[in-house]
Amino acid sequence: MSRWLRAFSTTTSLFNSTMASRQHSFEVFRDVDPLRKMRRQLVLSNRTVGLVPTMGALHEGHLSLMRQAAEENTDVFVSIYVNPTQFGVNEDLSSYPRTWDSDVAKMEQLNEELSRQGEKYGRITAILAPTSKVMYPTLPPSSEVDGDGSFVTITPISKKLEGASRPVFFRGVATVCMKLFNIVCADRAYFGQKDVQQTVVIKRMVKDFHIPTEIKIGATVREQDGLAMSSRNVYLGSRRRAVGLVLFNALKAAEDAYLSGKTNRNEILDAANRMTQKVLGDQQALKPSERALFEVDYISLADPDTLDELEVVDPLRGAILSGAIKMAPLEQSNPGEDCGLGDGKVPVRLIDNLILTTRV
Amino acid sequence: MSRWLRAFSTTTSLFNSTMASRQHSFEVFRDVDPLRKMRRQLVLSNRTVGLVPTMGALHEGHLSLMRQAAEENTDVFVSIYVNPTQFGVNEDLSSYPRTWDSDVAKMEQLNEELSRQGEKYGRITAILAPTSKVMYPTLPPSSEVDGDGSFVTITPISKKLEGASRPVFFRGVATVCMKLFNIVCADRAYFGQKDVQQTVVIKRMVKDFHIPTEIKIGATVREQDGLAMSSRNVYLGSRRRAVGLVLFNALKAAEDAYLSGKTNRNEILDAANRMTQKVLGDQQALKPSERALFEVDYISLADPDTLDELEVVDPLRGAILSGAIKMAPLEQSNPGEDCGLGDGKVPVRLIDNLILTTRV
Repeated sequence: MSRWLRAFSTTTSLFNSTMASRQHSFEVFRDVDPLRKMRRQLVLSNRTVGLVPTMGALHEGHLSLMRQAAEENTDVFVSIYVNPTQFGVNEDLSSYPRTWDSDVAKMEQLNEELSRQGEKYGRITAILAPTSKVMYPTLPPSSEVDGDGSFVTITPISKKLEGASRPVFFRGVATVCMKLFNIVCADRAYFGQKDVQQTVVIKRMVKDFHIPTEIKIGATVREQDGLAMSSRNVYLGSRRRAVGLVLFNALKAAEDAYLSGKTNRNEILDAANRMTQKVLGDQQALKPSERALFEVDYISLADPDTLDELEVVDPLRGAILSGAIKMAPLEQSNPGEDCGLGDGKVPVRLIDNLILTTRV
Repeated sequence: MSRWLRAFSTTTSLFNSTMASRQHSFEVFRDVDPLRKMRRQLVLSNRTVGLVPTMGALHEGHLSLMRQAAEENTDVFVSIYVNPTQFGVNEDLSSYPRTWDSDVAKMEQLNEELSRQGEKYGRITAILAPTSKVMYPTLPPSSEVDGDGSFVTITPISKKLEGASRPVFFRGVATVCMKLFNIVCADRAYFGQKDVQQTVVIKRMVKDFHIPTEIKIGATVREQDGLAMSSRNVYLGSRRRAVGLVLFNALKAAEDAYLSGKTNRNEILDAANRMTQKVLGDQQALKPSERALFEVDYISLADPDTLDELEVVDPLRGAILSGAIKMAPLEQSNPGEDCGLGDGKVPVRLIDNLILTTRV
């Protein structure tokens, strides 16, 4: 924007004192104005910016988005902000993992990796780690359904699936992303396929509000056995981690049904439900010191744009197969057992999805 | 933004076929992409854009904002769009005046006036007159309080004053302005002081969402006797127009009380209420063929940022003195009487305000 050009030409010092030290290979910003000054310089230099919004607790899924952003842009901006308005009043805002030092180390390591690739790749050049006063400058961030504030709401898609059990979640996500998009003015922004409803909501927001940033979706990154990476996995411990794989396996069973030619809801979802019931039954037969119980929140077969539940998949449109399960706290732990962060006492909600692609 | 620079460098034809003819001194756009191409060229040329959002039915108030925009920017973009989501289901969306030809003529005339001022002033170079499908690309625009769609809500300030009787109004205003800001990426956007709550809501939205556009407020333009200009005034006719001046006079009486040293709510508002009661009483004493009746919707003395009603004005903060009255349809008209558009049968809601400035 031309106001950037003008503003930059009168800026004598590019970086000001509100940012953290420069011991890193990227700048760390706590506030908007210094970041905008850097952004202006990039505009002048005809460089491009890919934004990777995160809540920290970085894992390989985030790093893979940053790699993709570095492939497609000269500069990668990573935001790290645990956004309070997307946590419900009874959710895990206070216990959400905050791991600044290891996050920074991972991004440093990624920059080294990118350097070895030569000029073909961009680099992480800015981290935005704003305070809540910066992100919510007027009223304190509300997690109440009827709380006051400045919000973006995207309905009806925000009320479905995850939104059914988390009524403020997508309002919080859309609101904070609108702010981040306005602050960074990125050419592209990167989101992981794992949070599939989030990708649908954000794409809808970008379309409906004509936001001049392109949304790119990165494939879900999985552990070797298929468990989708998540910042919350650290709470699982080995026993619940092994059982938690049931969600991915159930979705895969349903996908197999689709790939083998089934298009009816029941035929597809039955495959998933048989899997979860079998695993749950097996667990229930074990002793409390050996088992990990869970509840299925939902297994959904939905339209890729409207998220309406489908009775029949149109192979020309495909579908989103998604689910959520809640891993209960361990009933009893064993001496020396790896029970995860929080000693197995934290319930962990796992989500996952597979896209049923179009076929002719 | 650098994506604009890149996009422009690969654009062979600047203006495409979706825009209207070039018989005007400005381009007329119905869709977003062609406007963005023009906007990119302005970025490259280091020119600045001032946006004046309107619903058409242009009057001297709008033209004064365009003049201000031309003083402060090289290019003035005017949007003309009667936004359905800010009209309640029982409001006057269908009867809102639509006067495209005279709007265009007024802007042509303004461009001639600006040309005579020489290089010091910018010009109107683009009109955005989008379709509703462009502005609401996914779901049809809903006027229902619980209607679905992609919306911006700014509470609690949107619930007060005008929002109390028009519950979807500021949701609609904020939503359409967010879209326009994203489409135009203006350096500055211009709003009239007459819609004072709108200026407060928009400024709050820009602050809370970090929108990189500066909001400028132009003084209320008034007829010689003081009536605030409004697109709805054409419905008044001479009899209601004369009586409708009561709102401005009541606010002036309250302002006088403040300027004479009063700071208590009652002392300030009593001056206004005495005025409206006197004028209403005088009208009620007249014959139906001679009088124009009205109802006072509210007279408010509110904080300039929160819009909370004030018991006492802090002279260091000042206050917003605002009001709304509803002019009833004429009970009986006389042969040859100028009853305004709609023959005096359309109820007309008038709003006005004065800022009680700070003083030491």
